[in-house]
Amino acid sequence: MRDEGIGSWPARRARSSPERTAIVHGERSFTYAELHERVNRLAAALRRLGVRRGDRVAYLGANHPALLETLFAAGTLGAVFVPLNTRLAVPELAYMLDDSGARVLVYGAERAEEATALARRPDPRTLVTVGGSAPAGHEAYEELIASAPVDPVDEPVGLDDTCMIMYTSGTTGRPKGAELTHGNITWNCVNVLIDVDVTADEVTLVSAPLFHTAALNMTCLPTLLKGGRVVVEPGFDPERALALFATERISWMFGVPAMFDALTAHPGWADADLSSLRVLMAGGAPVSESTIAAYQERGLTFLQGYGMTETAPGVLMLGAADSVRKAGTAGRPSLFTDVRIVRPDLTDADPGEPGEIVVRGPNVMRGYWGRPDDTARAHTADGWFRTGDVATGDPEGFVTIVDRAKDMIISGGENIYPAEVESVLHDHPDVLECAVIGVPDERWGEVGRAVVVPRPGTAPTEKDLLAHVEGRLARYKIPKSVVFTDALPRNATGKLRKADLRRDHGTP
Amino acid sequence: MRDEGIGSWPARRARSSPERTAIVHGERSFTYAELHERVNRLAAALRRLGVRRGDRVAYLGANHPALLETLFAAGTLGAVFVPLNTRLAVPELAYMLDDSGARVLVYGAERAEEATALARRPDPRTLVTVGGSAPAGHEAYEELIASAPVDPVDEPVGLDDTCMIMYTSGTTGRPKGAELTHGNITWNCVNVLIDVDVTADEVTLVSAPLFHTAALNMTCLPTLLKGGRVVVEPGFDPERALALFATERISWMFGVPAMFDALTAHPGWADADLSSLRVLMAGGAPVSESTIAAYQERGLTFLQGYGMTETAPGVLMLGAADSVRKAGTAGRPSLFTDVRIVRPDLTDADPGEPGEIVVRGPNVMRGYWGRPDDTARAHTADGWFRTGDVATGDPEGFVTIVDRAKDMIISGGENIYPAEVESVLHDHPDVLECAVIGVPDERWGEVGRAVVVPRPGTAPTEKDLLAHVEGRLARYKIPKSVVFTDALPRNATGKLRKADLRRDHGTP
Repeated sequence: MRDEGIGSWPARRARSSPERTAIVHGERSFTYAELHERVNRLAAALRRLGVRRGDRVAYLGANHPALLETLFAAGTLGAVFVPLNTRLAVPELAYMLDDSGARVLVYGAERAEEATALARRPDPRTLVTVGGSAPAGHEAYEELIASAPVDPVDEPVGLDDTCMIMYTSGTTGRPKGAELTHGNITWNCVNVLIDVDVTADEVTLVSAPLFHTAALNMTCLPTLLKGGRVVVEPGFDPERALALFATERISWMFGVPAMFDALTAHPGWADADLSSLRVLMAGGAPVSESTIAAYQERGLTFLQGYGMTETAPGVLMLGAADSVRKAGTAGRPSLFTDVRIVRPDLTDADPGEPGEIVVRGPNVMRGYWGRPDDTARAHTADGWFRTGDVATGDPEGFVTIVDRAKDMIISGGENIYPAEVESVLHDHPDVLECAVIGVPDERWGEVGRAVVVPRPGTAPTEKDLLAHVEGRLARYKIPKSVVFTDALPRNATGKLRKADLRRDHGTP
Repeated sequence: MRDEGIGSWPARRARSSPERTAIVHGERSFTYAELHERVNRLAAALRRLGVRRGDRVAYLGANHPALLETLFAAGTLGAVFVPLNTRLAVPELAYMLDDSGARVLVYGAERAEEATALARRPDPRTLVTVGGSAPAGHEAYEELIASAPVDPVDEPVGLDDTCMIMYTSGTTGRPKGAELTHGNITWNCVNVLIDVDVTADEVTLVSAPLFHTAALNMTCLPTLLKGGRVVVEPGFDPERALALFATERISWMFGVPAMFDALTAHPGWADADLSSLRVLMAGGAPVSESTIAAYQERGLTFLQGYGMTETAPGVLMLGAADSVRKAGTAGRPSLFTDVRIVRPDLTDADPGEPGEIVVRGPNVMRGYWGRPDDTARAHTADGWFRTGDVATGDPEGFVTIVDRAKDMIISGGENIYPAEVESVLHDHPDVLECAVIGVPDERWGEVGRAVVVPRPGTAPTEKDLLAHVEGRLARYKIPKSVVFTDALPRNATGKLRKADLRRDHGTP
């Protein structure tokens, strides 16, 4: 193997721990030696399909070992991995394939319809089917691996080479591809190994989507780097997860708060065997105090983090030791990542003063793929990445995410940060989920509206909930109305689609 | 802080875990916040003394927090740290100061005599006394820190900058300075965090000398990177170590095998509280099976490693899981470090065939300071570092160090690797320590001689020991004579000084 690119990891782990299990996927499992051989054969097969250093290889599908194998095989060749979000529509996927200029699309058979539609695009493009049977003109993934040579691919791929292009979730605006180097991915893993006591015996449940940065980079890759085991599930199902905790002896899991809430809401929760769980890592939104309490009753604490695709992704981490004392904050910067909270003029905000989070460090992306103007706009003149998110710092250095800048509601000249209001609403026992949006108002410009999903078996009223908020927040922050719904629109990472919320519930 | 040089670590850890204890030294201890402030002041003081980017700052003294502070402060300035071996004589130290061109020498007060002698050298050089009272013309360390400004030093120091010059132990030949970058040191730490399950709650006993690479780079710096605690002792004393296990709740310790044997030989061993010990890491020589067994009885296993100053230092690691099954081997390569065993023509040796170990990876030094010819000679044309050590690999990839190439005995045309013979002798219950050297022989050219330190209370005879070896080794490997002595000459890392042995015991 050559250099330290992540394509070398399967070979390196096969050297260190060949017989240990790397990946469990339903009834199948692969040791590191097997993973290495498969990745090596896949790399040879991709090369035979014409993939060369710098070419892009896309993947569309639910979580599957093939996604990881394709990532590593592309890395081995110095090619660039482009994971695609399975919840997107064909025109959105076509946009990303065209924007990245992907030469090969590997897809899960469950996505055959989209893939076939994408194959009709003008660009010459090779399609590879994982599972099922390959349509005419598409390659079959397992056949490619079986017929490929075993000779090792020996391409030097270093930390400065581009590893992947991950499209940002696109809750607003046109998706942009964050260009992440092997060094970005590796340094994020180093930060994780420093911030989290990951062991070689880790058994990590990967049920959040691997096409998003959190599951892939915060838990899956660090686990594989340590020689632990990842249990790759096509998606999250609370009943299945509770069963896997016991049968696979899961020790580590990443999830968005809604996933952790779904576990406690499941009838199997009370009797679930949680004895192997050691590290629960939450991201996407702060874990509410009631959720923290529910897990504390079972002896479990959360690590919480804040990050984003562009930073590969870890920026802030709230360790278990501080998880209760500093609940609601996103923690402190990861060791090798620098964070500032700045005013619009880029001077440092005082403790407690909201400002934009800007980030610098070896995990920060090279830039937006093919968009030098967007890249320049996203950075300060001296190289800090501008997150667009608003936060406050406390005197101990703990950072609280106040809001995504773009979600801020301005009402009568006062700024309202929805997350703060949601946090208070969420503590009402009858509230399962909630979101606060701005709706136009003749008098105030905008006023807040709460969109609430009641906890099953309860029927809170608008009056109940507003009474709950009364006195807990400044008057101007209290929503002027509450609407009830069955579920909140979320993207695959669990982030609220506020644009959809506004469309559905934002009429005055 | 700027970039990722190790000078930034105290500031980064002070940001992440300000209130946690970083260093314990006798009755004193420092939190990370305190360490950061002291390092920052020391850096400002060194700058005031004229130290600039690239200048060398040497340290001479027993283990002390000041050694670590000087390392970090030099790193903060982009200056180069030069740790000196306290067991060297003044002319040897003078050679290293001159060779490195050190501008400042920080020394422990117990080394005032040597320092004063070194101050008489022609070069203008600033001397700084740690502890005691500073002689006229020398600076007092604590006064420098107390009077320095607190303003942070903000010098960009990256992974490609030189971090330290460590002189190789010099058991043979003239000492050479291995020039190690911040990246070399950091990547070794990354390898350690991958190979060893280091936690943030680690309490690491540092009683092997910090001027050598193993204690500093394999345990002390990885512990500080994780935010754990190092208990810095001026030296190793078995009684004191056993007491510290209990009072400081030591979880991790590095030592050479002789240190671990001294612990079991101590009368306090049987009743010692070992309950906090988790990771015992041994290097310098393989741990004998009898030592492994003695610790196994107490529920403890060893991590064993092989490395050297030039590789910052980890190369091979034998994990606890394999420590019994693969006892006697030095393990497999650390994750990001590549190892080959090669014939004299640099082709790969077959499994079982002895060959020279060559190493490549991000932890391999930039070169020998000021010695481009030595640097070139120490590397193959395609950039592998030549260790000069002889090893065999087994089909599973475990490497056994057969011998330092230069220690090989050639007897009647057969190669004898002393380590192999020593390992067998050591398993005799009456042998505390032993070494095998070659002595001139008219008939065979050279024959082996065993130099043995009997276990206290025993009186083995030459006949006893040769009978023990008989049948366990090929006839030509059996020493022709045994001599008894009270102690073996060792350098500060615990490595045998074979040259001294040959001088004292090598006459036919």
